[in-house]
Amino acid sequence: MNLAEPATCSISMLAGTMTGSTGRYAKRLSDLRGIYADDAALTALIQTTGDPVVYDVCDFRPSADPGDLILGVTRMSPGKVAREFFLTRGHVHAKANRPEVYYGQKGFGVMQLESPDGETRIVEIGPQTICYVPPFWIHRSVNTGTDDLLMMFSYPADSGQDYGIIERSRGMRHRVVSDGAEGWTLVENPDYVARAPSEIAKLFERTD
Amino acid sequence: MNLAEPATCSISMLAGTMTGSTGRYAKRLSDLRGIYADDAALTALIQTTGDPVVYDVCDFRPSADPGDLILGVTRMSPGKVAREFFLTRGHVHAKANRPEVYYGQKGFGVMQLESPDGETRIVEIGPQTICYVPPFWIHRSVNTGTDDLLMMFSYPADSGQDYGIIERSRGMRHRVVSDGAEGWTLVENPDYVARAPSEIAKLFERTD
Repeated sequence: MNLAEPATCSISMLAGTMTGSTGRYAKRLSDLRGIYADDAALTALIQTTGDPVVYDVCDFRPSADPGDLILGVTRMSPGKVAREFFLTRGHVHAKANRPEVYYGQKGFGVMQLESPDGETRIVEIGPQTICYVPPFWIHRSVNTGTDDLLMMFSYPADSGQDYGIIERSRGMRHRVVSDGAEGWTLVENPDYVARAPSEIAKLFERTD
Repeated sequence: MNLAEPATCSISMLAGTMTGSTGRYAKRLSDLRGIYADDAALTALIQTTGDPVVYDVCDFRPSADPGDLILGVTRMSPGKVAREFFLTRGHVHAKANRPEVYYGQKGFGVMQLESPDGETRIVEIGPQTICYVPPFWIHRSVNTGTDDLLMMFSYPADSGQDYGIIERSRGMRHRVVSDGAEGWTLVENPDYVARAPSEIAKLFERTD
């Protein structure tokens, strides 16, 4: 029996990165095409800003074994595309009954959650706030503040991600937009297509 | 299908407690009888201090389902019993192949890890340091600093804890003791009884 060795990672509050990580990726504005309501505003922003990184993720993946855990940190820039805030693509877990824990470290944002049948929940995240994403909820994080949003996260190592679920419903049911002052509000997404009962049923089969 | 609702917990950096928790427990000096080398020093300390809380734990347990996650925060007071620091009882997971993630928030300490066949590893923990405890490692946290040690943690919901494993080997193989200055050092525990191959084999069967 070969045991895995204990490991240590250290999160930089300034950079939003993590030492000891086994993987890292970044998403630029241009990677978020198709996600925002105002596509022309996105194109204009990419042109004027030089397509900056919107968010990056450092993670530590000891294994993909059932029962093991992945952990990491994500940093998201503040900004807006028209009225909509910078956000992550969002996903549901490939094994849909796997949860996720997000732990706010710096900045302010929200976790936007959607149940398979289209119920929306919003959890506000700030420093030292934990958001527990239960099994089966589609989720995306949104930087509603003016500073970087930093979150530590942890989820089961065999969860996987299904990023297509939001694309197939033509976005999440609601959009998180600026309220015109310093806050956020929800608006309906008119393009949203409710999931068919057969697709919902399939989600509940993806468990093990 | 009833979905669990998203939840939020907020950690107090000052108190080391957490809002939104579903459970909480505290351990006093007198709960640590049998753990320290110098039993007379422990008895004397209990008498002079009025048996204070040494550490407390707030956790959030959404379910005990395989694939789900438990999270929480632990706060440990600084202090020593003779040369040994305040520490937790320590455990291995009842399903021994379950890992754990500890995330340092305040103070300084170490995670003491021991493999089933008696190898010791030490991971130093400070603010923004994560310790990944791999499957099968017995582990205990030790406050080697002069302030409260605060850690956020997360582990699979079906892990369980076996606290008896350390008792059965008459302690861990090493003791973390003060080096006489501001640091720590390891000394052998002369009472330690190595685990029999049959007990080690049983541990590797406790997986699912």
